[in-house]
Amino acid sequence: MLNRVLNEAFEKGKEKTQYGAVATYIPELGKADKNDLGVCIATQYGMCISAGQCEKRFTIQSISKIISFAVALEKLGPDKVFERVGMEPSGDAFNSLMKLEKADSTPHNPMVNAGAMVICGYLCELCTIEDMVEYARRWCLDDEIYIDEDVFASEMANLSRNRAIAYLLHSKGYITADVEKTLEFYVNMCSLSVTAKSLANLGLILACNGVDPKTNDVLLQPQTVKIVNTIMFTCGMYDGAGEFALKVGLPSKSGVGGGIISVVKGTMGIGIYGPALDVKGNSIAGIEMLQYISEKLNLHMFG
Amino acid sequence: MLNRVLNEAFEKGKEKTQYGAVATYIPELGKADKNDLGVCIATQYGMCISAGQCEKRFTIQSISKIISFAVALEKLGPDKVFERVGMEPSGDAFNSLMKLEKADSTPHNPMVNAGAMVICGYLCELCTIEDMVEYARRWCLDDEIYIDEDVFASEMANLSRNRAIAYLLHSKGYITADVEKTLEFYVNMCSLSVTAKSLANLGLILACNGVDPKTNDVLLQPQTVKIVNTIMFTCGMYDGAGEFALKVGLPSKSGVGGGIISVVKGTMGIGIYGPALDVKGNSIAGIEMLQYISEKLNLHMFG
Amino acid sequence: MLNRVLNEAFEKGKEKTQYGAVATYIPELGKADKNDLGVCIATQYGMCISAGQCEKRFTIQSISKIISFAVALEKLGPDKVFERVGMEPSGDAFNSLMKLEKADSTPHNPMVNAGAMVICGYLCELCTIEDMVEYARRWCLDDEIYIDEDVFASEMANLSRNRAIAYLLHSKGYITADVEKTLEFYVNMCSLSVTAKSLANLGLILACNGVDPKTNDVLLQPQTVKIVNTIMFTCGMYDGAGEFALKVGLPSKSGVGGGIISVVKGTMGIGIYGPALDVKGNSIAGIEMLQYISEKLNLHMFG
Amino acid sequence: MLNRVLNEAFEKGKEKTQYGAVATYIPELGKADKNDLGVCIATQYGMCISAGQCEKRFTIQSISKIISFAVALEKLGPDKVFERVGMEPSGDAFNSLMKLEKADSTPHNPMVNAGAMVICGYLCELCTIEDMVEYARRWCLDDEIYIDEDVFASEMANLSRNRAIAYLLHSKGYITADVEKTLEFYVNMCSLSVTAKSLANLGLILACNGVDPKTNDVLLQPQTVKIVNTIMFTCGMYDGAGEFALKVGLPSKSGVGGGIISVVKGTMGIGIYGPALDVKGNSIAGIEMLQYISEKLNLHMFG
Repeated sequence: MLNRVLNEAFEKGKEKTQYGAVATYIPELGKADKNDLGVCIATQYGMCISAGQCEKRFTIQSISKIISFAVALEKLGPDKVFERVGMEPSGDAFNSLMKLEKADSTPHNPMVNAGAMVICGYLCELCTIEDMVEYARRWCLDDEIYIDEDVFASEMANLSRNRAIAYLLHSKGYITADVEKTLEFYVNMCSLSVTAKSLANLGLILACNGVDPKTNDVLLQPQTVKIVNTIMFTCGMYDGAGEFALKVGLPSKSGVGGGIISVVKGTMGIGIYGPALDVKGNSIAGIEMLQYISEKLNLHMFG
Repeated sequence: MLNRVLNEAFEKGKEKTQYGAVATYIPELGKADKNDLGVCIATQYGMCISAGQCEKRFTIQSISKIISFAVALEKLGPDKVFERVGMEPSGDAFNSLMKLEKADSTPHNPMVNAGAMVICGYLCELCTIEDMVEYARRWCLDDEIYIDEDVFASEMANLSRNRAIAYLLHSKGYITADVEKTLEFYVNMCSLSVTAKSLANLGLILACNGVDPKTNDVLLQPQTVKIVNTIMFTCGMYDGAGEFALKVGLPSKSGVGGGIISVVKGTMGIGIYGPALDVKGNSIAGIEMLQYISEKLNLHMFG
Repeated sequence: MLNRVLNEAFEKGKEKTQYGAVATYIPELGKADKNDLGVCIATQYGMCISAGQCEKRFTIQSISKIISFAVALEKLGPDKVFERVGMEPSGDAFNSLMKLEKADSTPHNPMVNAGAMVICGYLCELCTIEDMVEYARRWCLDDEIYIDEDVFASEMANLSRNRAIAYLLHSKGYITADVEKTLEFYVNMCSLSVTAKSLANLGLILACNGVDPKTNDVLLQPQTVKIVNTIMFTCGMYDGAGEFALKVGLPSKSGVGGGIISVVKGTMGIGIYGPALDVKGNSIAGIEMLQYISEKLNLHMFG
Repeated sequence: MLNRVLNEAFEKGKEKTQYGAVATYIPELGKADKNDLGVCIATQYGMCISAGQCEKRFTIQSISKIISFAVALEKLGPDKVFERVGMEPSGDAFNSLMKLEKADSTPHNPMVNAGAMVICGYLCELCTIEDMVEYARRWCLDDEIYIDEDVFASEMANLSRNRAIAYLLHSKGYITADVEKTLEFYVNMCSLSVTAKSLANLGLILACNGVDPKTNDVLLQPQTVKIVNTIMFTCGMYDGAGEFALKVGLPSKSGVGGGIISVVKGTMGIGIYGPALDVKGNSIAGIEMLQYISEKLNLHMFG
């Protein structure tokens, strides 16, 4: 039955790839093929089923925010992390400066660009980007993850808005590390090259309380998993998080590279690749597929 | 064990009643005794345990927003309701006008005052306030719910800010009913007199997919319950919703009368009365008790 | 030469009446004829020259803000007045609520709706609307000024946005008078029926330091005139005040009824009637004429 | 009489230097002596009178905005300049990002940091910083103006907020020049070392329609002078421009180095040095002196 639902979801998704558009504000992302589509489900019993392009590599973009956030929680603990970044949904677009400026408050949460930069400001003084690649490989069960240098270069060359955010954070004391070093770290994390399958694997680890169900290795502390999943639920889908919570009802995070990761507590991880995005920056076919899967398999957290 | 945890939680809560303050912007609410405290748990097997003042009446205030919202969903369906109110957390205080003004957008969600007024604008043309009292009585399994006329009068006499919001909504076309009638309806709903036990009962119905487990009566459609619980999770605790989601992890809604309702999917409803509030308007001892209960009984949705 | 420039300006203006649109948010104003145009200049030597419809009556609308402000300054003195209203240009539209909400600050200045309502809140406890009509008649040298009851009724029936502003001001303590009484006072002031000639006369009084040059009667204190003229220069033309200051360079105030009043220090008052408005709410032909007159007669304050 | 008023004003100012504080966000500025005070008046008949430290050098800071703006107007003409910067007072603090972010609009005017950076973005592709020093020397009649390298270095090392603004402007297309080059140009301009006398001389040129009254040299086009004086009047004193317009009523511009320049049309230029600032960034003793001089000599533009 899982297989049938997956295939039906894929057909539904395929009809949607004609809508939306690939991200172009980073020129290198503009080269993606908007007809590409893949969905992969990894289950707690070791099964991995998929449809479409699940081995095709693409850059992780904002989904890296959950990796950085998890590393920071493990290394620094939640108290230290939440000194400089909040826990609240923002109601604004992911790259907004408004809230930062309005009052002297921390960035709203670690899923908006500003919050992720604060996290990278912490991390770039604690570990190297090679360490981070290592974390990504281990948690995604994917040894081939690497930094896509073309995307990295393209993003570094079009960084004015994020640079503005980072310098504003520095002027307010929320980044104390070197700003350019922080930005480079941040863009490197966005440029990690993954597949739908890598994301499904990471989703499964988050579904299984931080344990790899195949090996029983403890990869993440339960406290970290609880925090990451909760924040993904309330803040993971940009300013479409509320609508997504109603329609799909799973902790999820999307990236403008076309990826989405979803977590089905105790049972599965789902990875998506579909680079045609809606106006909020989420994979348009990806959301369609997740909504179908959630409904048919009755996965909604509050359903 | 449930009993022991409840009593321990109550002791923890008692230590907190010295902090915070009762709401005073509605003078009648200022008469509450800040040392009052009660917590009640209703379970799917018909058990109802409690500690403290669980029969003491207080006004429901913002918790009425979930009753109004549920009635609107049942009567109009989600599509019609969401034409005039959003699904997104706002990141602003409950009585903010900022977001409304910034762009021509609907109120962010039905849990902020503006959104609840839109709902009341719909409802006041569909049913009477007596009908609403009837819904409240049925869903809370409490025939003694009534409108507290003193609080109603006190709130009507101090309504400038809410009146400002309502007229702004009318000027933008999100309220088309008579504005004063809408406001009166809204304030009447806020003035419903309930107990911690009433709230626990309503929480249990929401935990049991809309069915009263004692009688198997279907009181709410499953779709309504799913939507209400999800919105409570992302938006139910004012601008402290994100922090509460991390610390407690249960769909909940608070009111400035000191009440909180929490929903433990499939198993229980929790009702709180504790009128000493934190700066965000949530019962300070109530949150303490819920956090304790959630941790000890392992109730966190993402834990 | 004054005559020739006036006629040339009128011709220039006539070409512009085809653009813009009459105000429609108050239905009664929508009945104006967008081709109407009149300009009148009153000089310190008692000359009064005009072109077009200078005797046609229209409602004063926002130009009443300078009359209310002047009365408040005369009755209460600047210190008291500026306790509740600021002196700063706002950079926002005339009916914005944003700035009010952002911080607990007074309305920016007495030329925005919010500021004028604060002034009316003061005045409605000090004098009757009949007293205000009397002030208007005396300062405009026009005994026929009256309150246009049709416009008054039409505006009262479409007052949601202004009502929102007034209740917000009340909730913040900047209006302490009865809100509905304040609003009625405010709308009555907006409904004063004037002519281009009335405005030219008032402009001349303001140009002559508060003295009627024909009779040498002192109608306004010099301090009041200085304050009113300065505020008109920095804040008089809605969010187009800065551009108008550059292009015309005269203290001026416009109203959505199509009127503009301009003050040429020491020498003349100019009154305009032209109900076709630009997007900022200023008479489109009126600005054209004023720019022409200012350039040809070299009237710019900083020219 | 001018001499007596100047000396009285100086005494008044001296009493105020105990209040306020020198700017410290640029560490090098923090070294100023808050008791320093100087005022210089240059008249159209070639007289130059002064009190206090009028030969002491300090950095021009934001007063450089009028020099950059004037050069841009002369080189590019107003149409080109106003394509990328507005003419409207902003009502916000000088270093605000809010308005920029709210909508896709240009910076409000050339007197806020964002607007001045747009101007520097134009200029840094048209001329060298040496050329700019040359303009400053010529217009201030002061051959000794130089760039204070200590202040320059100190400001470059504490530039996060301005860097945030510049990158945001670049991301929106209002700066197309290299951002770092633009910032360096901007900070160099802020670091010009002037005296109260230099500012009085520049004020006199602006008072005399761009002509040096001693030599009859035309240093600025009349159109440039008109625009600069008008913008100074409406936007020159940060978010205290409206209050200053009421109290002093002269086109003026202040800098956080403690300088103020004021223009008395047709008759004089006034230069101030007083590094103790009020909360809005204006010289506290400087405003006191200007208010006294304006009142005693009856200089208010609308008085």
